[in-house]
Amino acid sequence: MALVKEPSPVTAKDGPDQDGEYRAQTRLWLRLLACTTLIEGELRRRFREEFDFTMPRFDVLAQLDREPSGLVLGELPKRLMVSAGNLTPIVDRLVEDGYITRTPSTLDRRVQIVCMTVEGRKAFRRMAKSHGSWLASLLADVPQERVNGLIEELDELKGAVRDALQKS
Amino acid sequence: MALVKEPSPVTAKDGPDQDGEYRAQTRLWLRLLACTTLIEGELRRRFREEFDFTMPRFDVLAQLDREPSGLVLGELPKRLMVSAGNLTPIVDRLVEDGYITRTPSTLDRRVQIVCMTVEGRKAFRRMAKSHGSWLASLLADVPQERVNGLIEELDELKGAVRDALQKS
Repeated sequence: MALVKEPSPVTAKDGPDQDGEYRAQTRLWLRLLACTTLIEGELRRRFREEFDFTMPRFDVLAQLDREPSGLVLGELPKRLMVSAGNLTPIVDRLVEDGYITRTPSTLDRRVQIVCMTVEGRKAFRRMAKSHGSWLASLLADVPQERVNGLIEELDELKGAVRDALQKS
Repeated sequence: MALVKEPSPVTAKDGPDQDGEYRAQTRLWLRLLACTTLIEGELRRRFREEFDFTMPRFDVLAQLDREPSGLVLGELPKRLMVSAGNLTPIVDRLVEDGYITRTPSTLDRRVQIVCMTVEGRKAFRRMAKSHGSWLASLLADVPQERVNGLIEELDELKGAVRDALQKS
């Protein structure tokens, strides 16, 4: 494992902790957030420019692409880790545009099922292909074994955070 | 808090690319996003519950904490990588609540300078201390050398993405 560099002017001031007590964890969080914000900003921009689409809409379609028989509407906010209230206008708009359908379950009419339409699936595949190639180009200079190493490390990080959340 | 069920839907099928061509880069992005979303959700929840505060407001104060003589208002959206339009209501509210001031520059009255108040700084320090301890507890089971290694790897990742963005 590589040693940490001497604090650079940028890293030395990173984060709000002035006492240094939690410095490393806070710095790690700020790095995670910075990488995600940087990549997300570019993905958002490209979705908007190339497809006149938003990332939350794409994220909903990505979930439904994995569920050929549809998904209970209430599952979507859990899977996307957003509030149901934030999701409602996004789902409404996708229904209006014909990308998804929202129908009462035949088993329990109080339960709504959302399902991707054929047109939605076509649009999603087209966008997913571009999404993949944007990411490949953004990360083109990161060696493959580093990409794989980071995937593994972030999986472990996520597991550790989940465990901590369950304990708290 | 409501945890996402195992297996995580985000990681279960590794993103939208069905052809596998860009799979590793897409998977890395989804891991980054999943870690960030998980931690961010918990931080948001705690800010709300313990301080009745939002993360974007905290982020603005964190920027101003580093600038004792204040910051040109137009710098804030760049530093926080958000749109000026999204930031305006947040700044307005912080001004109203007395955490920051917004005054015309003495050099050029068209330029607005935002600056943290004494009260704002006190509130920020209190919250920053909690923010640091929340992160320390969320990441308590991640060994220190792994935290440091990840900081360095994410710094390099950010650099590679920035370079790619500049080239494009």
